[in-house]
Amino acid sequence: MEKAQIKETILGMGAHARAAAHALAVLDTDQKNAILHAMAAGLRRYAPDILEANALDLAAGQDRGLSAAMLDRLRLDTTRLEAIAAGVEQVAGLPDPVGEVLADWTRPNDIHFEQIRVPIGVIGIIYESRPNVTSDAAVLCLKSGNATILRGGSEAIHSNRAIATALQAAGEPAGLPAHAIQLIPFTDRESVSVMAGMDQWLDVIIPRGGKGLIETVVSLARMPVIKHYDGICHTYVDKAADLGMAVAIVDDAKTHKPGVCNALETLLVHRDVAAGFLPKIAAVFADKGVVMKGDPHTLEILGEAAIPATDDDWKTEYLDLVIAIKVMDRMADAIDHINTYSSRHSDCIVTADNGRAERFMRRVDSACLFHNVSTRFSDGGEFGFGAEIGISTDKLHARGPMALRELTSYQYRIRGDGQTRTKCATT
Amino acid sequence: MEKAQIKETILGMGAHARAAAHALAVLDTDQKNAILHAMAAGLRRYAPDILEANALDLAAGQDRGLSAAMLDRLRLDTTRLEAIAAGVEQVAGLPDPVGEVLADWTRPNDIHFEQIRVPIGVIGIIYESRPNVTSDAAVLCLKSGNATILRGGSEAIHSNRAIATALQAAGEPAGLPAHAIQLIPFTDRESVSVMAGMDQWLDVIIPRGGKGLIETVVSLARMPVIKHYDGICHTYVDKAADLGMAVAIVDDAKTHKPGVCNALETLLVHRDVAAGFLPKIAAVFADKGVVMKGDPHTLEILGEAAIPATDDDWKTEYLDLVIAIKVMDRMADAIDHINTYSSRHSDCIVTADNGRAERFMRRVDSACLFHNVSTRFSDGGEFGFGAEIGISTDKLHARGPMALRELTSYQYRIRGDGQTRTKCATT
Repeated sequence: MEKAQIKETILGMGAHARAAAHALAVLDTDQKNAILHAMAAGLRRYAPDILEANALDLAAGQDRGLSAAMLDRLRLDTTRLEAIAAGVEQVAGLPDPVGEVLADWTRPNDIHFEQIRVPIGVIGIIYESRPNVTSDAAVLCLKSGNATILRGGSEAIHSNRAIATALQAAGEPAGLPAHAIQLIPFTDRESVSVMAGMDQWLDVIIPRGGKGLIETVVSLARMPVIKHYDGICHTYVDKAADLGMAVAIVDDAKTHKPGVCNALETLLVHRDVAAGFLPKIAAVFADKGVVMKGDPHTLEILGEAAIPATDDDWKTEYLDLVIAIKVMDRMADAIDHINTYSSRHSDCIVTADNGRAERFMRRVDSACLFHNVSTRFSDGGEFGFGAEIGISTDKLHARGPMALRELTSYQYRIRGDGQTRTKCATT
Repeated sequence: MEKAQIKETILGMGAHARAAAHALAVLDTDQKNAILHAMAAGLRRYAPDILEANALDLAAGQDRGLSAAMLDRLRLDTTRLEAIAAGVEQVAGLPDPVGEVLADWTRPNDIHFEQIRVPIGVIGIIYESRPNVTSDAAVLCLKSGNATILRGGSEAIHSNRAIATALQAAGEPAGLPAHAIQLIPFTDRESVSVMAGMDQWLDVIIPRGGKGLIETVVSLARMPVIKHYDGICHTYVDKAADLGMAVAIVDDAKTHKPGVCNALETLLVHRDVAAGFLPKIAAVFADKGVVMKGDPHTLEILGEAAIPATDDDWKTEYLDLVIAIKVMDRMADAIDHINTYSSRHSDCIVTADNGRAERFMRRVDSACLFHNVSTRFSDGGEFGFGAEIGISTDKLHARGPMALRELTSYQYRIRGDGQTRTKCATT
């Protein structure tokens, strides 16, 4: 498609989304939930169309030589589609964040202030491969009163179009405003830069995918970007740790699901317990086929069970059965190491000394800090948020698990009886 | 100065600021307040140096032909310097936002979650002309536990350097961490693009100044930007308005201080009260020399007292004794007009009908909505926030008056007794 045509199409979608956002902002909770239930039914009703579209994507993916893992991420079947529909119903059951009074107070001049949670407006989401994101992201945005413009990856374009069509077709008779959920129907790269430039229509852009995609969006975007970067997560086993607990937590954080962002990548061990702890965890890791890369002190203790780590290992998110290990002289060194190399996503201390745990938590600058809990709990569901759009590695607006509340803004509503600054100033 | 040298200098300041931020984050409230009091004393002690530096800026400004208004904004004297020092003491008296528990809860698996307010980290501030910003911004960032890198305008460089030196020299013996407050000592344009690119060191950038400056920062920045754009503020006089109150509010909002962002720019009047209201406010405006620009309906009522408005008037922030006036057939039209042309800063409805006021407030997408109160109250001081860094026109992180709380982020601290996802998942 011509660049000018792509731009015109997407800018038009932006203007439509703004109008839809105004309509969405005034829907009440019951109206939104009715739409969500209709959309869940729609996903079930349109299942044959969605699976047929998915078959086209899978065939194209095989032709293009996608890996088995990639093809698996792309694949939908009746079970997976039912899980997507159930996810929509689950969002209907979550509390509506919109309208919550965050604060209210009265000033000495009798002016009354209220800070109210409101939708953000129009949210752009750029994502790769997994077609369930089309539904998951759209319904979280809808429940929080936002319009969405979705831009999925080329490998899932047929599935994404079929899912978006099902959501729209089932939602609109139930009251979904026109253009509340829009999918960019083509996947030219140009569409990313057009989205990144249209800050008159998009209030925020959320990239979900690899580092390359996020980099592109960050360098082009004129509007706020909420980034979901990698998780270089640490666990520090303190000299006062219960070593049995430490083995269980480190094992869980590394091996329960190594391919996700809250999995452990670097293990730091206080030197006083290194000789006692490292052989214990190494035995577990050896059983599970975890490759151990250690600093010289670790290698001294573990011998040939580990291989040497290089400086690059402290900066690497393996997302695999590989772990970097370093022995620390003092807790302060562990804190420095984490503040230097962590992606500030999730880091953990294992210790029986609460005072040391508090010092660690006050000094480490990460979104989620765990004391005697596996970093694998860094997850919207495990936080009790119900469903999440991702884990933000940003520090502004949303940090850590990002769910419905993080998809809102606020507004001040100020009421009086004729106050003017001329007569009623308090400052 | 050479570009490479500018870049190296500023990147070095960034790395130092990050280290300072870690030191600042663990200062307690008393320590920070002691530093602030020492800095206020320092501004008084170094007053002769600061005023001497200011004289250099004023002389240079006169040579460069700055307007009288610009020179006045630049000028410091004993009274103004005392006000700056008193401002520092006022910030010392404000509650410390850091450490506030925003939420805490326990999950069924006995994991305890706490959401705690923490500093953002390193804040970049780019501003123009008024040298008081050097102190105001630095002390608000310090109280909220953040390191700052300040980049002021060339016209105030001597004053800014003298103020920053006074703050550092007086603060450091009282415990201010080295590099907690840094001023870029030169004003090459290149420094803005270096700052905008160093997202490894700056967590957020706040531009304060004209639209051109903000535009430049927005298009270059890789980190979040909190924008303080213009205030195209509206007041809508409803058919159910108390017209006496409406005259007082509109007069105040337009004429109390026309050069600021919360001043009224566009007046919308319901047609049922236009003939009764417009001549009343026109008489007040005529007395005060306010130029009235009206739509055809307004001109019919006001005759030669007003001149015709063009479409551009609805998009203009006059910051002057000029007002655009339009008669609306229905409140819905006023809402549409505001949602189209407002800069989403502050808008007002005057009406005695609370139901209509609520509808207006639910439907207008602006940071601050006023019912029967002048928009001039859109101000951190009048909100009771004590001191503000500005009024954000963004919707993410900080919206409306931005004070100490808006200069913070949060962190989750999660405590347990050995929970693993393998054994204790709740989802």
